[in-house]
Amino acid sequence: MKALVKEKAAPGFALRDVPVPSIRDDEVLIRVIRAGVCGTDVHIYEWDKWASSRCKPPFVVGHEFAGEVASVGKLVTDVHEGDRVTAEGHIVDGRCMLCRTGNAHVCPHTRIIGVDRDGCFAEYIAMPASNVWHLDDATSYDVGGIHDPIGNAVHTALTADIPGAVVLITGCGPIGLFAIGVCRAAGAARVIASDVNDRRLDLARTMGAHSAVHPADLRAEVMSATGGLGADVVLEMSGVDPAVHQALALVRVGGHVQMLGIPAAPIEIDFASEVIFKGITIYGVVGRRMYDTWHQVTRLLRSGEFDPTPVITHRFPLEEAEAAIAAIKSGDAGKVIFEIA
Amino acid sequence: MKALVKEKAAPGFALRDVPVPSIRDDEVLIRVIRAGVCGTDVHIYEWDKWASSRCKPPFVVGHEFAGEVASVGKLVTDVHEGDRVTAEGHIVDGRCMLCRTGNAHVCPHTRIIGVDRDGCFAEYIAMPASNVWHLDDATSYDVGGIHDPIGNAVHTALTADIPGAVVLITGCGPIGLFAIGVCRAAGAARVIASDVNDRRLDLARTMGAHSAVHPADLRAEVMSATGGLGADVVLEMSGVDPAVHQALALVRVGGHVQMLGIPAAPIEIDFASEVIFKGITIYGVVGRRMYDTWHQVTRLLRSGEFDPTPVITHRFPLEEAEAAIAAIKSGDAGKVIFEIA
Amino acid sequence: MKALVKEKAAPGFALRDVPVPSIRDDEVLIRVIRAGVCGTDVHIYEWDKWASSRCKPPFVVGHEFAGEVASVGKLVTDVHEGDRVTAEGHIVDGRCMLCRTGNAHVCPHTRIIGVDRDGCFAEYIAMPASNVWHLDDATSYDVGGIHDPIGNAVHTALTADIPGAVVLITGCGPIGLFAIGVCRAAGAARVIASDVNDRRLDLARTMGAHSAVHPADLRAEVMSATGGLGADVVLEMSGVDPAVHQALALVRVGGHVQMLGIPAAPIEIDFASEVIFKGITIYGVVGRRMYDTWHQVTRLLRSGEFDPTPVITHRFPLEEAEAAIAAIKSGDAGKVIFEIA
Amino acid sequence: MKALVKEKAAPGFALRDVPVPSIRDDEVLIRVIRAGVCGTDVHIYEWDKWASSRCKPPFVVGHEFAGEVASVGKLVTDVHEGDRVTAEGHIVDGRCMLCRTGNAHVCPHTRIIGVDRDGCFAEYIAMPASNVWHLDDATSYDVGGIHDPIGNAVHTALTADIPGAVVLITGCGPIGLFAIGVCRAAGAARVIASDVNDRRLDLARTMGAHSAVHPADLRAEVMSATGGLGADVVLEMSGVDPAVHQALALVRVGGHVQMLGIPAAPIEIDFASEVIFKGITIYGVVGRRMYDTWHQVTRLLRSGEFDPTPVITHRFPLEEAEAAIAAIKSGDAGKVIFEIA
Repeated sequence: MKALVKEKAAPGFALRDVPVPSIRDDEVLIRVIRAGVCGTDVHIYEWDKWASSRCKPPFVVGHEFAGEVASVGKLVTDVHEGDRVTAEGHIVDGRCMLCRTGNAHVCPHTRIIGVDRDGCFAEYIAMPASNVWHLDDATSYDVGGIHDPIGNAVHTALTADIPGAVVLITGCGPIGLFAIGVCRAAGAARVIASDVNDRRLDLARTMGAHSAVHPADLRAEVMSATGGLGADVVLEMSGVDPAVHQALALVRVGGHVQMLGIPAAPIEIDFASEVIFKGITIYGVVGRRMYDTWHQVTRLLRSGEFDPTPVITHRFPLEEAEAAIAAIKSGDAGKVIFEIA
Repeated sequence: MKALVKEKAAPGFALRDVPVPSIRDDEVLIRVIRAGVCGTDVHIYEWDKWASSRCKPPFVVGHEFAGEVASVGKLVTDVHEGDRVTAEGHIVDGRCMLCRTGNAHVCPHTRIIGVDRDGCFAEYIAMPASNVWHLDDATSYDVGGIHDPIGNAVHTALTADIPGAVVLITGCGPIGLFAIGVCRAAGAARVIASDVNDRRLDLARTMGAHSAVHPADLRAEVMSATGGLGADVVLEMSGVDPAVHQALALVRVGGHVQMLGIPAAPIEIDFASEVIFKGITIYGVVGRRMYDTWHQVTRLLRSGEFDPTPVITHRFPLEEAEAAIAAIKSGDAGKVIFEIA
Repeated sequence: MKALVKEKAAPGFALRDVPVPSIRDDEVLIRVIRAGVCGTDVHIYEWDKWASSRCKPPFVVGHEFAGEVASVGKLVTDVHEGDRVTAEGHIVDGRCMLCRTGNAHVCPHTRIIGVDRDGCFAEYIAMPASNVWHLDDATSYDVGGIHDPIGNAVHTALTADIPGAVVLITGCGPIGLFAIGVCRAAGAARVIASDVNDRRLDLARTMGAHSAVHPADLRAEVMSATGGLGADVVLEMSGVDPAVHQALALVRVGGHVQMLGIPAAPIEIDFASEVIFKGITIYGVVGRRMYDTWHQVTRLLRSGEFDPTPVITHRFPLEEAEAAIAAIKSGDAGKVIFEIA
Repeated sequence: MKALVKEKAAPGFALRDVPVPSIRDDEVLIRVIRAGVCGTDVHIYEWDKWASSRCKPPFVVGHEFAGEVASVGKLVTDVHEGDRVTAEGHIVDGRCMLCRTGNAHVCPHTRIIGVDRDGCFAEYIAMPASNVWHLDDATSYDVGGIHDPIGNAVHTALTADIPGAVVLITGCGPIGLFAIGVCRAAGAARVIASDVNDRRLDLARTMGAHSAVHPADLRAEVMSATGGLGADVVLEMSGVDPAVHQALALVRVGGHVQMLGIPAAPIEIDFASEVIFKGITIYGVVGRRMYDTWHQVTRLLRSGEFDPTPVITHRFPLEEAEAAIAAIKSGDAGKVIFEIA
């Protein structure tokens, strides 16, 4: 089968013909139809410090996808050939104390597809049946293929109290854009989005942001919308140093800052004025709650109030991986996906 | 001034000319513009068992209203003449342990306007400044006058986890109808409403219910919408014996039943099968959280996603109190209001 | 091996020699050392209405136990021969929406050992590895054998907010007695226990109840301890009609009633005065949170602040099952256990 | 009356004879019997950057105290002459959105006694009646006088989930020491305390810490106690840069870090590895929840499981303010108090 392979410890991907994966008795084989390209894939492509310390080539890249079940192992009872599915890409041990107490998303033994084992930028992928998530008939493969980052957005937003809240979202990459739609669907009183890129601000408005402004105009916007008090909830989606400080400055006292964007370097925090005297709560968001978040994604899609499709701005075949990576790096893209079948 | 007065321990109200109330230093005088008529007012009108044990005539009736501040006591600093306001009708002591720990809504020393002291079916009412709630300029007096029952709906709904949930609402009186709109605004995946009255079912659909059915069809509707599992959240708004049993039967295991409707008589509950083996949580809803609920009401109105106005079906002058009471008793009405100024 | 068997649809147990169970690849075989006798076992012994509608003889009885792992299936990686273990007796499907979202304790596909499949009143039992819970070296098999009902007590108590609370526990059977110790360990300001049986009241005091009184004296005791307000939290452990009404009457407004005791018949509830106007929350407790509760049990035992051993009042060999059942039925017993090896 | 006065914008306090304060109609006059000396008082004494930017001499210093009510304003109904009381030192407006929604502890209009208006290092202090907290008869003035910092400890600890948790407390100043006792009373499985000062480590053991170690030995201690996982909850009580990093390093994934210690300078945080990938929650603790925390303090004291008195190591008359300040600056002291009457 065709697959995008990280072949060696150097920049780049290679499109290769590799064997269709075999499956264990508790796994299923999925024919991949759509796959999302993520910033993590860019890190692996560029072979940066994080990637080179974590990944062991060769392996098939990619962790966001949807497809059709091609075959199932003999111990699998609840997934069937032909099922329309996506999957959680974090494969956890299921037996450690964290997994057993509702914290599988931070299981210390997590292995991620496309990072620690073969991924989904390929015609087929093998997945443990326990990680498979069924798609509603009404859900397209386009949307199924990006359940993973939609899940990040849902995890970030809905672990705060959104109905009626003024929400500030710093960073309008794909997850930030999804979060705008999630917060609108969940009844936020006002969603204010911020980014340095005008195309992304346009996408933010398309996704329902009540206002979408440059960081330079953000303080005035938030303070005007909140009588000078600050936002009830901030979703920090950029990982950029000044945005993190804005998040802490523009959340109201007693408010919540949900941090998903991953800063590339340490940030100097004045805990006294930025955290403690404000009495705020900061939550570090990793992955998706397994599987509460997935259940919420399905249910939000069913409500009809949340449509993630405008975020998808670019589509490529696997053969054009370089173009896909370039689109993300341009900073102009919403979500970039591969059309595989 | 003109006022609807409960004059004596017998059925009926009397329209009387009474003195404009004087205010204490920490009170404000409000010129009433709109007032909502509530089931409680019907109980007082009819002088039923509850009313005759609680109320001490003579007193001015009515507890839901909005209006304009006419004058303020000399200790009042944050309410001003001309302010557009509504008010919490529960006057609490503010000093007991419950008030001091966020439970003022169940303060044992609560006195309710229109029940325990003079109310708002009058041209003017005196209110403690601490109970006054300012209206946004964009909020009409119509909507301001029904903040109290909207608050009941918000308290009932938003103390459960609504975004993404399948919500069943049993009983489509005004508060049930408001709750439909609140749950839609807060991103419920599906809102199923039930009532015995076709006009109310029509109003339920107008307010956004995905389906609105007779109790006889409710089980099939809920089970079909939830794969046989049951609703995540049930808002019991009827107080009717069979509806309470349906609420308990149709909530999923581990789900939440919020009880606002007040049964007139005891109900036989099989705790084993209806509560314990299902692992559910039941919450008794009284009044509005002070003032978290009010803040949520304001913010939901600001979101533009929640419009309560279709619930208002009848408008009367104070002179037509009999007609207002009759409209409620017919079972066909949504919200009935007095236009006072 | 020796086993207590429910042989047919009639009262009684039979001590029989049966084959040692074989295990599947994902199961472990456990040599049973201690087993707890539960009210459920009495229902099965007596073959009452519930038992005869639920159980299908023949099967080995018993669901509370601890022992030593004798052998493990070839897919089992985290349980080893010789491990000291107990186990959750609810075998769930692990794949339904409830299991996947932290609600396995109400999985609709639950099968219970000793009820729906062979149990632990035997020299050996087969258990899925996923249900096994390791015991600390410092935890005796006596205590390991009663982790199941200790877990019920922990689930009931710690899903409320205990530190600093005035807690009322109605019913001093074994789980009520454990709950007294749990609440003391968790910093309850005052634990008031109630039962009709003097021996149980003595055990309640031994377990740390600040006061232990007859139901007739309970109102005075609670009101005196709370300035007339009522208990912050009530753990209803009796399932008896008047105790349920006392629970609702003696919880303070805005308080929590955790219901574990299973009433044998419907109870008439005046929702208006007993639930709604009080603004209380009722939680139906079934089984143990999987595996949050088990983790809490282990950690509470490690704290050294909770010692359940005084609750164990009777010990029998399997041969004296009749005496064990009789001890429970007498109403005087604390926890009754079998010493099997 | 005698009072310790910050007379001018320079280091030092002056013992002066000043008029007994007059009270407003809604205030009470309290005869001060005990007062606690706090790090904040040291900042004011030394006239550091924070103090010189915040405070406006002259004013009476001190914000922790207990005493006897000497007289009450004519609007005061629930405090009486002779009552044994302490008081919340944060005087809030009570009317802003934060105060009205349970967040008075972060009211932007807060004025603090001994900082923004006259304080309690004096024979008498005037306090709004709404800030007064009654002491149980069984509570000594010694303990009443330090309810404020005990409240900080309770706020820090009990906003996390303590029963059964492994708790790490970094910093054994008075509030850290109180927190040890609070966590023990609330059923922590293990309390590990850390400080650089051996006397404070001794006090930590006296207060019930299962282990009390130097920062250099802390990692080994925590990892050994948690099977390499890390602490469930960390209470950061030191405000010291390396302790903040240890707090983030030694909390388990998915755990909670409560930050009360106030760093004097910004700290470089690697959000990726220290916060986000760990999925932790950070809560900035300011003051005490009004008045939930106070209620918890009273109830914990009533439980008999929490005794703060061993933390009091030094007692001085007002005349020896220099010695009191020196004792705190030595780093060896537990709690330092003034005996005023």
